[in-house]
Amino acid sequence: MTREIRRLGVLTSGGDAPGMNAAIRAVVRACVHHGIKPYGIREGYKGLIDGQIEPMNARSVANIINQGGTLLKSARSQAFRTPEGRQTAFENFRSADLDALVVIGGDGSFTGATLFEKEFGIPVVGIPGTIDNDIFGTDYTIGYDTALNTVIEAVDKIRDTATSHNRLFFVEVMGRDAGFIALNSGIGCGAEEILIPEADRGIDHLIKSLERSDRTGKTSSIVLVAEGGKDGGAFEIAKTLEAKLPDYEARVTVLGHIQRGGRPSCFDRVLASRLGVAAVKTLMAGNSCVMVGVRNNAVALTPFAEAISKHNAIDDELLEVADIVSI
Amino acid sequence: MTREIRRLGVLTSGGDAPGMNAAIRAVVRACVHHGIKPYGIREGYKGLIDGQIEPMNARSVANIINQGGTLLKSARSQAFRTPEGRQTAFENFRSADLDALVVIGGDGSFTGATLFEKEFGIPVVGIPGTIDNDIFGTDYTIGYDTALNTVIEAVDKIRDTATSHNRLFFVEVMGRDAGFIALNSGIGCGAEEILIPEADRGIDHLIKSLERSDRTGKTSSIVLVAEGGKDGGAFEIAKTLEAKLPDYEARVTVLGHIQRGGRPSCFDRVLASRLGVAAVKTLMAGNSCVMVGVRNNAVALTPFAEAISKHNAIDDELLEVADIVSI
Amino acid sequence: MTREIRRLGVLTSGGDAPGMNAAIRAVVRACVHHGIKPYGIREGYKGLIDGQIEPMNARSVANIINQGGTLLKSARSQAFRTPEGRQTAFENFRSADLDALVVIGGDGSFTGATLFEKEFGIPVVGIPGTIDNDIFGTDYTIGYDTALNTVIEAVDKIRDTATSHNRLFFVEVMGRDAGFIALNSGIGCGAEEILIPEADRGIDHLIKSLERSDRTGKTSSIVLVAEGGKDGGAFEIAKTLEAKLPDYEARVTVLGHIQRGGRPSCFDRVLASRLGVAAVKTLMAGNSCVMVGVRNNAVALTPFAEAISKHNAIDDELLEVADIVSI
Amino acid sequence: MTREIRRLGVLTSGGDAPGMNAAIRAVVRACVHHGIKPYGIREGYKGLIDGQIEPMNARSVANIINQGGTLLKSARSQAFRTPEGRQTAFENFRSADLDALVVIGGDGSFTGATLFEKEFGIPVVGIPGTIDNDIFGTDYTIGYDTALNTVIEAVDKIRDTATSHNRLFFVEVMGRDAGFIALNSGIGCGAEEILIPEADRGIDHLIKSLERSDRTGKTSSIVLVAEGGKDGGAFEIAKTLEAKLPDYEARVTVLGHIQRGGRPSCFDRVLASRLGVAAVKTLMAGNSCVMVGVRNNAVALTPFAEAISKHNAIDDELLEVADIVSI
Repeated sequence: MTREIRRLGVLTSGGDAPGMNAAIRAVVRACVHHGIKPYGIREGYKGLIDGQIEPMNARSVANIINQGGTLLKSARSQAFRTPEGRQTAFENFRSADLDALVVIGGDGSFTGATLFEKEFGIPVVGIPGTIDNDIFGTDYTIGYDTALNTVIEAVDKIRDTATSHNRLFFVEVMGRDAGFIALNSGIGCGAEEILIPEADRGIDHLIKSLERSDRTGKTSSIVLVAEGGKDGGAFEIAKTLEAKLPDYEARVTVLGHIQRGGRPSCFDRVLASRLGVAAVKTLMAGNSCVMVGVRNNAVALTPFAEAISKHNAIDDELLEVADIVSI
Repeated sequence: MTREIRRLGVLTSGGDAPGMNAAIRAVVRACVHHGIKPYGIREGYKGLIDGQIEPMNARSVANIINQGGTLLKSARSQAFRTPEGRQTAFENFRSADLDALVVIGGDGSFTGATLFEKEFGIPVVGIPGTIDNDIFGTDYTIGYDTALNTVIEAVDKIRDTATSHNRLFFVEVMGRDAGFIALNSGIGCGAEEILIPEADRGIDHLIKSLERSDRTGKTSSIVLVAEGGKDGGAFEIAKTLEAKLPDYEARVTVLGHIQRGGRPSCFDRVLASRLGVAAVKTLMAGNSCVMVGVRNNAVALTPFAEAISKHNAIDDELLEVADIVSI
Repeated sequence: MTREIRRLGVLTSGGDAPGMNAAIRAVVRACVHHGIKPYGIREGYKGLIDGQIEPMNARSVANIINQGGTLLKSARSQAFRTPEGRQTAFENFRSADLDALVVIGGDGSFTGATLFEKEFGIPVVGIPGTIDNDIFGTDYTIGYDTALNTVIEAVDKIRDTATSHNRLFFVEVMGRDAGFIALNSGIGCGAEEILIPEADRGIDHLIKSLERSDRTGKTSSIVLVAEGGKDGGAFEIAKTLEAKLPDYEARVTVLGHIQRGGRPSCFDRVLASRLGVAAVKTLMAGNSCVMVGVRNNAVALTPFAEAISKHNAIDDELLEVADIVSI
Repeated sequence: MTREIRRLGVLTSGGDAPGMNAAIRAVVRACVHHGIKPYGIREGYKGLIDGQIEPMNARSVANIINQGGTLLKSARSQAFRTPEGRQTAFENFRSADLDALVVIGGDGSFTGATLFEKEFGIPVVGIPGTIDNDIFGTDYTIGYDTALNTVIEAVDKIRDTATSHNRLFFVEVMGRDAGFIALNSGIGCGAEEILIPEADRGIDHLIKSLERSDRTGKTSSIVLVAEGGKDGGAFEIAKTLEAKLPDYEARVTVLGHIQRGGRPSCFDRVLASRLGVAAVKTLMAGNSCVMVGVRNNAVALTPFAEAISKHNAIDDELLEVADIVSI
């Protein structure tokens, strides 16, 4: 089955992720390649409701592959959660005479896309763009690899200064519900301990770990904390620990939105380029309400319903590696 | 089947690759974890012949995960290619009372390891460490991801200055026999054309591509050249092109050994940590003459014979993506 | 007047600063150049008391010019604040047969050095090494330039994501008593507002500034906060502001010790190389209790007493520039 | 004396330099601050002749302070070297009703500006923007500090791999007539030898230096070569040296236009912000045909005639430091 598409809209939705621009660029140029006219929708679903829809071409995405953020901007839209909002969005969509939609974002964005498709029959394909790597159906989300590098580059600098005895550095990273960033960047930066939602062994385990470090001659320790764990953020845990181990001096870094920006890594740019090209092909092949992802190095499709409801689990092998290499 | 190992040697061999230190660290700490005494052999096979074998411990690999190069240094050894050289190496190996060997390097290093195992029955496991990503049996070699980032960061800077009309930038990257670096970094940096050994379409195709860029309004173009292609390096191609297209002003950058160094990316550090831990486990499980790699996100074993003789092919999907996104 | 020096000790003291290694390297190599035997004292004054004094040579400082932190480590020493501690330090100094001392650190380190010179007549020269740039007698301290770059690289990433309306980013930087980091990195990163101890115009001024930004069409704002200002750190100010401006969503980043590490910038490496060479010359010329700094691009000497008691003032021109360019 | 300015044009000319955007931004916002209407002229003098003059405002320079290159683009203009070309430029200037001009560029750009002022009485002020730091009247040109960091970051990576014996790395940097980049980045990266036009001691000195390195135990050496020296570029010198020292294996890196791009350093951003603000003030104060620079940390004016005809000399102190720290 194939679908004829004359005009295609693309938008970015949800939190920014490095590589979103590379995905937009790939969608736009794949359209040009296939004779489809690409349109950019600004500020996500909000812009669809506000009618911010503009024609793009191969040159309008020049020199953006290396830029963080998103050229089309992203915004939250309460209005799109209402039937009235989606109705207005649909009317703008039709006024612009668009045939299909590519949504770059996270699972919240795919939920909105699913409703839009169900209510108005708009063919829509999703591209996973979020630093959290928490979307089922793809081994990697766009922006995740860059965020990992951002975290380890920051922690590398802390390591330079970690020469005094009994000094403890807490670094809070993103990942409210998913510990992928904390676990992988924790291995990557050589953290002595990693606190993630999926395998939070509590403050007492942390204390034991620090005592072991002390015995084995470590002069200082770096602890990575995923935001929103059960023991609180980095500042809370640092306070708790200082109360229990008064010899230790704790220093806290909260990386915050730094993790959402920055020039995308090569991995993210290539991933985004592949998925952008694949999204257009997938729409042309007649699919809808599916996400294009990468599984086992090949492009793979996952229905939105599955991408939203299922979750990638933390790999036990990685947890074991983290334990072993932090000895 | 399991093998008892009391003392294990580890060496790095061949060209440096970022992440080798992370692999050494993981091997050493996995040994400590399993009650094995780790020994570092300096300067690869050369050091094995010279008797540069020293005990290591968890602390001797502290603060190296973020360093490029290799703590154990790497060197070429003509002597190890001779039976006499390997005999001396074996005697040193036995004097140090080592039971097994981990070799971090490329296919040349695995060839040496194979001979060493055959002649003296030393159990040996390999870890793929090379920026070229040209080893069969693993989706990624250690150092490759970092090298890609190094290339795109360099080319990003060139892109900033590429504002004048009819300006042509040639950037020569590594990859004498394999175009993985050029192809992937070429997509990542948004190169207008990528010249790789596996799919070299010649100067004439390049000229056509530049003429197309001109028509579509590109003001300047960046061409990635893998060293050692049939039309020569970047300087040669630039000269040929300027002769054929006198309106163009060509500028050349030769990245050279910059690509072999630098702080490893998070991807390479995690990969190296996983493979280091897996190498020790693999030896303990009784295997020998195999390489530990990562395939489809899981650790996988490949016999040295296969890793050496077979080659990863360039993915057609990527070639197509490269063509489409460079419109 | 000249002084004959046969053996010279060098130590780093106080908080780490990028470029300290380059300064150590320059001191050691200048010694070698002048026929003086260089000795490294580990962990600052603490190591002097503990007798951690070791001979160095041109090769022992190889490959450190590009490393953050300090090879000789730094530590605080309560003991050195006591006459008994300094007596022990002096005995170790004499046992090692050292003739002179170079101290790399901040004003606290120079205070200790002054006492050591007064009590025991040890010739000592200081090199200003601190990221805060708050030492009188030098236009730049070693590490300051690198810290500025660290801050702006972090904030650049935040800027990528600052696309939504009414979003407010607070970034807390170091500088308890001196706003040099906040003011200069604030200009460098294009902060909308900069809160520094020397010119803290209070929350109300910040609110007015945000309202102006709103009127002139800014979609989001970045506020740099020097730690320890009168309105508290970034988290406190963010809370106060969200209470007063409920439409704004505030996001907080606390950079912390990231600012003390990282590869030194070229500026800091050259500065450290110049000052390290100058420190040895200054001792050879018979001086003592002086700091070598750079003023108006030339090496300049300042007595410790002056370097400790006086302070560089924030330049009014810079404050005005900050106001104008943040329109 | 003061001059009333209602509308002011700004252009960038000559080779790109990181920080030019920060300077444009400062000029534009200083105009807004003083009630002057700012106009951007694209592609330098070429755009002035072509009539590419557009109004700007505070928002049109948003989010550019951290970008390399120049928003206004830069181009060479043969036409502006002719009286006819300048006449057309003047007519466009008058049509746009502009009162004054700010030129950001190098000495070639100031030569053009001088003619334009003489022939048509247009008040013009220059801002030194070039990576070469070769303009008299300012201690630093915009872009120079960033270029130094670009070079040392590249060479740092080479240093990681420089572990084998008798290996020699040649790195060619920019600076056809001025060795500032080579000398300062050479000190910064710890180069064993630096070949600059101003103090080229020839191949024989280089050979002696390598022999000394050999004796003192250096395993490998890095040589920085300023392009266009009397012994040729890095490739030529490498060949000559390999012929004379067959034991050495030479590796060459040519950085090329990488040095002109990249995100500007904090130093360059602050410098550019100060000079942009100062340029507008200088015009308002009634000056013309002068360059605003920074001398001894303060803004200083230099007549174009002097800025063009005189040259900064290489500092002997730095040459001595380079010799000492490379021991």
